[in-house]
Amino acid sequence: MSAPWRARLQQSLQQNASLAYSKYVQLATVRPNGRPANRTVVFRGFLEGTDHLTFITDKRSNKVSEAAANPAAEVCWYFPTSREQYRVSGLLTVVDSSASEPDLIVARAEMWNSISAAAKYQFFWPHPGFPRLPEYDEAYVVPQDKPMDQAPECFCLLVLKVDEVDLLELFTNSRTVFTPQQGQPGQWDVLDVTP
Amino acid sequence: MSAPWRARLQQSLQQNASLAYSKYVQLATVRPNGRPANRTVVFRGFLEGTDHLTFITDKRSNKVSEAAANPAAEVCWYFPTSREQYRVSGLLTVVDSSASEPDLIVARAEMWNSISAAAKYQFFWPHPGFPRLPEYDEAYVVPQDKPMDQAPECFCLLVLKVDEVDLLELFTNSRTVFTPQQGQPGQWDVLDVTP
Repeated sequence: MSAPWRARLQQSLQQNASLAYSKYVQLATVRPNGRPANRTVVFRGFLEGTDHLTFITDKRSNKVSEAAANPAAEVCWYFPTSREQYRVSGLLTVVDSSASEPDLIVARAEMWNSISAAAKYQFFWPHPGFPRLPEYDEAYVVPQDKPMDQAPECFCLLVLKVDEVDLLELFTNSRTVFTPQQGQPGQWDVLDVTP
Repeated sequence: MSAPWRARLQQSLQQNASLAYSKYVQLATVRPNGRPANRTVVFRGFLEGTDHLTFITDKRSNKVSEAAANPAAEVCWYFPTSREQYRVSGLLTVVDSSASEPDLIVARAEMWNSISAAAKYQFFWPHPGFPRLPEYDEAYVVPQDKPMDQAPECFCLLVLKVDEVDLLELFTNSRTVFTPQQGQPGQWDVLDVTP
């Protein structure tokens, strides 16, 4: 049985499906210097057989080194049509080419196959965040002579194992917090709180 | 002279003005337990005479205690129409009823006067995040017998003093990082980097 917040989230996704960016969420992590980082990522569905959220990232991006030092993350998701906010907290796992768990190896390969060509190209670009040099210009176009059938080493699946969901509904001014029940895997406590 | 990223941001706000939620941004802070927090807040303009971003918050909310322990914050702003993302990092100052700096006292009072009645009401509600009890129900409606002309004690102006802006433009796949020049107040370095 899936988590009780999951059906709500899927309903919100449906209600806001007309907005292409309804799957864009903001993912916060903590930098090694103790300051927060926050960036937009695309929600890529739930990991098969789990309630874990998935995203993709480049191994060379800061969120990978941040997650290695501190796996805690919080996704903030605002749905404009339904005027709902989901704050989804949890711990990140970075699934790269060295993954050993069979399910995760398969999930990473399937994710690579599922993404658009444009999304794939970026993984062949120069190092994200490094100065852009004029001689790189041709590197940003469609990469030639690159094998697109297999995920490159820098392609990572990012898995968020959720341990709290805080749902705010602005139309009704209600707020609900979901937390896992201690010692009851798959069971969640649901609490109405003041917005 | 205002910061070079400010004109860009104001242009983006204009380009996306048809979306009521173009002023909704995600604000990340770090919780005292070292985990990130991330929530949607409404951008309330620049602090008079500065390039600092302003927001409002309730003194009883977690972001106030988080900012007290660690003032570092990062705002992530996604503009759907122009397909731009601004990541705005800086340090937070919470301006509450005990503020002593004249400019900030005035800014807080003016902010209170500028917000909608509905926004004001929330500051008279029970403690945010605490369990919602049936006997509170009438507390969520329009509060009666409350003086609305003066900011209540829990009303805070939140000021973000910016020390980095990272602008990603998805239409052109370009990314620009703005950082303050050392020893040159008001001067910013601008660097093109790989997205």
